[in-house]
Amino acid sequence: MLVVMQAQATDEQVRAVCQRIESLGYRAHPIPGAQRTAIGITGNQTEVEPGTLEEMAGVQEVIRVSKPFKLVSRDIKAENTVIGFPGCDATVGGRSLAVMAGPCAIESREQAFAIAERVHRAGAQFFRGGAYKPRTSPYSFQGLGEEALRIMAEIRERFGLRIVTEAVDNESLELVERYADVIQIGARNMQNFSLLKRAGRARKPVLLKRGMSATLEEFLMAAEYVMSEGNYNVVLCERGVRTFADHTRNTLDLSLVPAVQRLSHLPIVVDPSHGTGKRNKVTPLSRAAVAVGADGLMVEVHNDPDRALSDGMQSLYPQQFDELMDQVRQIARIVERYLPPARAQPAAAH
Amino acid sequence: MLVVMQAQATDEQVRAVCQRIESLGYRAHPIPGAQRTAIGITGNQTEVEPGTLEEMAGVQEVIRVSKPFKLVSRDIKAENTVIGFPGCDATVGGRSLAVMAGPCAIESREQAFAIAERVHRAGAQFFRGGAYKPRTSPYSFQGLGEEALRIMAEIRERFGLRIVTEAVDNESLELVERYADVIQIGARNMQNFSLLKRAGRARKPVLLKRGMSATLEEFLMAAEYVMSEGNYNVVLCERGVRTFADHTRNTLDLSLVPAVQRLSHLPIVVDPSHGTGKRNKVTPLSRAAVAVGADGLMVEVHNDPDRALSDGMQSLYPQQFDELMDQVRQIARIVERYLPPARAQPAAAH
Amino acid sequence: MLVVMQAQATDEQVRAVCQRIESLGYRAHPIPGAQRTAIGITGNQTEVEPGTLEEMAGVQEVIRVSKPFKLVSRDIKAENTVIGFPGCDATVGGRSLAVMAGPCAIESREQAFAIAERVHRAGAQFFRGGAYKPRTSPYSFQGLGEEALRIMAEIRERFGLRIVTEAVDNESLELVERYADVIQIGARNMQNFSLLKRAGRARKPVLLKRGMSATLEEFLMAAEYVMSEGNYNVVLCERGVRTFADHTRNTLDLSLVPAVQRLSHLPIVVDPSHGTGKRNKVTPLSRAAVAVGADGLMVEVHNDPDRALSDGMQSLYPQQFDELMDQVRQIARIVERYLPPARAQPAAAH
Amino acid sequence: MLVVMQAQATDEQVRAVCQRIESLGYRAHPIPGAQRTAIGITGNQTEVEPGTLEEMAGVQEVIRVSKPFKLVSRDIKAENTVIGFPGCDATVGGRSLAVMAGPCAIESREQAFAIAERVHRAGAQFFRGGAYKPRTSPYSFQGLGEEALRIMAEIRERFGLRIVTEAVDNESLELVERYADVIQIGARNMQNFSLLKRAGRARKPVLLKRGMSATLEEFLMAAEYVMSEGNYNVVLCERGVRTFADHTRNTLDLSLVPAVQRLSHLPIVVDPSHGTGKRNKVTPLSRAAVAVGADGLMVEVHNDPDRALSDGMQSLYPQQFDELMDQVRQIARIVERYLPPARAQPAAAH
Repeated sequence: MLVVMQAQATDEQVRAVCQRIESLGYRAHPIPGAQRTAIGITGNQTEVEPGTLEEMAGVQEVIRVSKPFKLVSRDIKAENTVIGFPGCDATVGGRSLAVMAGPCAIESREQAFAIAERVHRAGAQFFRGGAYKPRTSPYSFQGLGEEALRIMAEIRERFGLRIVTEAVDNESLELVERYADVIQIGARNMQNFSLLKRAGRARKPVLLKRGMSATLEEFLMAAEYVMSEGNYNVVLCERGVRTFADHTRNTLDLSLVPAVQRLSHLPIVVDPSHGTGKRNKVTPLSRAAVAVGADGLMVEVHNDPDRALSDGMQSLYPQQFDELMDQVRQIARIVERYLPPARAQPAAAH
Repeated sequence: MLVVMQAQATDEQVRAVCQRIESLGYRAHPIPGAQRTAIGITGNQTEVEPGTLEEMAGVQEVIRVSKPFKLVSRDIKAENTVIGFPGCDATVGGRSLAVMAGPCAIESREQAFAIAERVHRAGAQFFRGGAYKPRTSPYSFQGLGEEALRIMAEIRERFGLRIVTEAVDNESLELVERYADVIQIGARNMQNFSLLKRAGRARKPVLLKRGMSATLEEFLMAAEYVMSEGNYNVVLCERGVRTFADHTRNTLDLSLVPAVQRLSHLPIVVDPSHGTGKRNKVTPLSRAAVAVGADGLMVEVHNDPDRALSDGMQSLYPQQFDELMDQVRQIARIVERYLPPARAQPAAAH
Repeated sequence: MLVVMQAQATDEQVRAVCQRIESLGYRAHPIPGAQRTAIGITGNQTEVEPGTLEEMAGVQEVIRVSKPFKLVSRDIKAENTVIGFPGCDATVGGRSLAVMAGPCAIESREQAFAIAERVHRAGAQFFRGGAYKPRTSPYSFQGLGEEALRIMAEIRERFGLRIVTEAVDNESLELVERYADVIQIGARNMQNFSLLKRAGRARKPVLLKRGMSATLEEFLMAAEYVMSEGNYNVVLCERGVRTFADHTRNTLDLSLVPAVQRLSHLPIVVDPSHGTGKRNKVTPLSRAAVAVGADGLMVEVHNDPDRALSDGMQSLYPQQFDELMDQVRQIARIVERYLPPARAQPAAAH
Repeated sequence: MLVVMQAQATDEQVRAVCQRIESLGYRAHPIPGAQRTAIGITGNQTEVEPGTLEEMAGVQEVIRVSKPFKLVSRDIKAENTVIGFPGCDATVGGRSLAVMAGPCAIESREQAFAIAERVHRAGAQFFRGGAYKPRTSPYSFQGLGEEALRIMAEIRERFGLRIVTEAVDNESLELVERYADVIQIGARNMQNFSLLKRAGRARKPVLLKRGMSATLEEFLMAAEYVMSEGNYNVVLCERGVRTFADHTRNTLDLSLVPAVQRLSHLPIVVDPSHGTGKRNKVTPLSRAAVAVGADGLMVEVHNDPDRALSDGMQSLYPQQFDELMDQVRQIARIVERYLPPARAQPAAAH
């Protein structure tokens, strides 16, 4: 914490601020400058509440200096976190890119299997699909719930894909933890601290989406909530933020990727489907996400987007996803990452 | 829904789009213009998923036209909703302004009673105080929980103030519903749809804070979630949105007040404490909020802000709150609202 | 400037940063804290370019501390600036509110006089009208130019109203300076530094509108540009900023008013017409602007908004302006300001 | 334009709106829906001012449908614009990526030549350097003016690099047009329409930077201003927009690239230096920009960033630029673009 005094602040005012700081149990370090004095504050293990410092005579401004995150920080753990999954070689955060693909929502067993077959063949290691859908309207399709979870568990059996799906409250989290491999916390719940703490007690990795207007610090602090309960397997996910720009549904902030990697050891993936909200922008932004250094992608794919019950507009056709994977695979090599080749098409598939 | 065709779209392309619309079960209404054709879509009871319309040859853009909210809308209920409380004459949404004041967090019985005594004397009808605090850091003070609720129930007994306090999950909501008079849903949970639905089944009014980057439509849809479960007593609360501006913690968007009042019958109050995050801006923005036509205010007051465990920087001293009330009372009259006079100071109080 | 070191930074790294700071000609003040060291920088008369400090080993972050503005600052001049006009008692920044009203654009002598008559009668002291219009489209009406300036000069003669109108380049500024009383610099030109410097050499007061995404500091620095050339009569104008919110054309940021008043001695007025872009929100937000403490209002009024050549949607009917003035006049008293009564209607006016 | 009526609007209200539309000289097309009626408006060659339609009884909302741009649009010209330069094979918009590199500001002949030598060797075809600097503070270094232009003209002679430099007003534009190859219009002047029109009369290509809070439509309309005066050689440049995010100086919006390419035939390049404001993010975002499909890059390079007179923090060291070019060259191939190899180092250079 740093207190900046006004140019014309008197020595007495500076002394009064120092005394107040000391009376709050901290140490004050006045730094006289050419134009004005600043006062450093140390001795705070936790965040100082600036309280009325800002209101004292002669004070210009109070500036917070130290970062509040601990467990997420590279200060604590210098090497990258790599998350593995028992019984398969998929990882998140390792040299191999993690690709999570599938429909916005599980609509039926047939739909889910048809899509899973295609994304598996294209080389994805994770299947994403919504069982519990946070929809803006209470009258929109809200997901199939546990039935969807069961379908996805079958998909894991059938294709070996790891399952990523969203939990929206404690009840659904319990079920997601049981059936799935990665527990997704959605953007709208990024600061649902109660849910974050529950996820921190789960024994499965957590994929945490950035809130629509979350700063980098708030995003990392949300991950800190999960980790502070003992779950260190957290994957961050940039999915676009809300701005004035109206040519996409959200503004995908790819600079977050190197920014996270500088401060934190946690892996970060990018969701260009929600990040743009427009099918024709998903592939270019997927290329960009891999080029910027992301640890993976989360992409919506649907076999019949016209009739999708949600987010049809931003879902790729399976063939578009094949092309996306081809392009991304080439870019991966340039940034010293790796994406496994497309799988051979089974004889019976056509 | 309206499909705008490109200037050079052929008749065949227009026909193809119309056929697609009809095949989705809607009716298509082509409107040929001087420069381009637009196609209106009708027959949709629920929102149309624009699906691949936007991707079809010759299509420029797809524009959503109808508003998705129902129960919150003045289309359904033209007169203002006025929320009353049994055994007292306080209302929200009536001619009298509703003033909710108190500390950010309940820290102790002494602190809470000292503040309650002052805000009651100044004329507030509601006492606000946090029992469950959604804090950015897991290491910050998280609230006293049920103990705080019990203290506030005592405050209701002692001063006749109605209690407003935040619920952060189903468990806390159950307790809040039992002890308090108004269940607050915080900004970070505005799209925690699971919590909204639970609040919709509660038998107490709900105060719903606008999310940090919520559009008017999303805000109203969050209220729709509560109402769709049968709880029609919803108070909206503008508390600032997140923008690039850095001279306040959030940007208080007072234009939301007349915008809500045009579309919805629900009452709306303003929280200038979170809306600015700076003590010295709370009183001017409170005056402005009443002048713009808000149905009430939510204000943080603390008897010792220097030592507050949270949000000290934006809490008013009791005497500043007295002055705020004086000023607001005068402005209320000009906008044909009413704020009861300050209560006589009890003899023993000094 | 303050350099924050990483938690695990070595003493050697701290020393290296200090040496770099000293080698750049400044003084370094290390402040060892419980968790990390911060290093204050002093001795900089101008802004330090943080250069590669941020890239040095062990550095977490570089934080700018001192504010770059001088002439606009209350540090330099504690008392409010009050701008007077020869031969009339209108002021900006004094106890009396300054009301500037008129059409978006001057369309004809008849239109301008009809509106001027009404706003004068309602009590406005300034007439606003566009001669040079910065329009988003090159194909939209661009203003009548010098002809409009001549019409407004006649309006000054006829009604005693002071004229405020926008200059968009050096050529128009020269003419505006000759014909008008206040030179407006529009939001889109807030950082057209060449134009600001030219306005700084003018002998008429300058009304400077906040840019659509200008921070408080950038806004004040734009005023500093004008003042640095010798023109100390600058009026600031909040006119809404660009955010994600879509219920108004811009988001009116009323908290800027007390924020400016804390840092600067310059007067600040509010433009609720551009600030909301919606006629039905102009009067409520005008009340709020006066309640928050603004020094005046700038309001669009048109006698026939349906046929206005620009901004018809946000222009008030003359009768609505009368009502606005009545309401604002009452609120002014509560904040210890003053607005002259409406002028008697001339006998022949009906 | 589309008028959406309220659900409970009467037939009479619909008729009244239609009559108003017709009285304004347009044609009204009522579209009765299941829940409400919408009314299409046609016959408008220019934009309709919605005037008081929005205020009429029974009207819910007025929605603008048609896009106002013409010359920038693919509706007018389907194939990409490729801008060539006499006497050299550099292009912007062709298969070869255009790389513009150099210091923020020209500080001296020595500095400029040293940097030019390095960026030329690395494969850049354009040299960028500021002669006229739009600085937030009037007390910051404002550029060397014509002297800088003369230095850059020498650089063209010596290295064959084409020169890109910013004009900030009519006077500097005249000089820039004389000395340089591409006239840059900065972000702060994106809606300085007077300057845009002057640039439209210049005989050199114009590089137009996106304003800090410009929508896609406003950006294209600014280009339309230039083109409407007869200069069809416009290069667009995404350089980051202003948002709440504080981990970078601006938020680089790479989705704008495919969005522009869908609507317009004009080339678009990306400036990751201003777009992030942090040296360590320039290379990752450059890779991403090429991967997303940009037509080129504009990058700040400085031989001694520590002592740069402006923007040192975001300038690359020459060796970092070499690495950037190597990486970008590889990505270019994947997106079917091309970047010439680094030039052989002259024998005497070490």
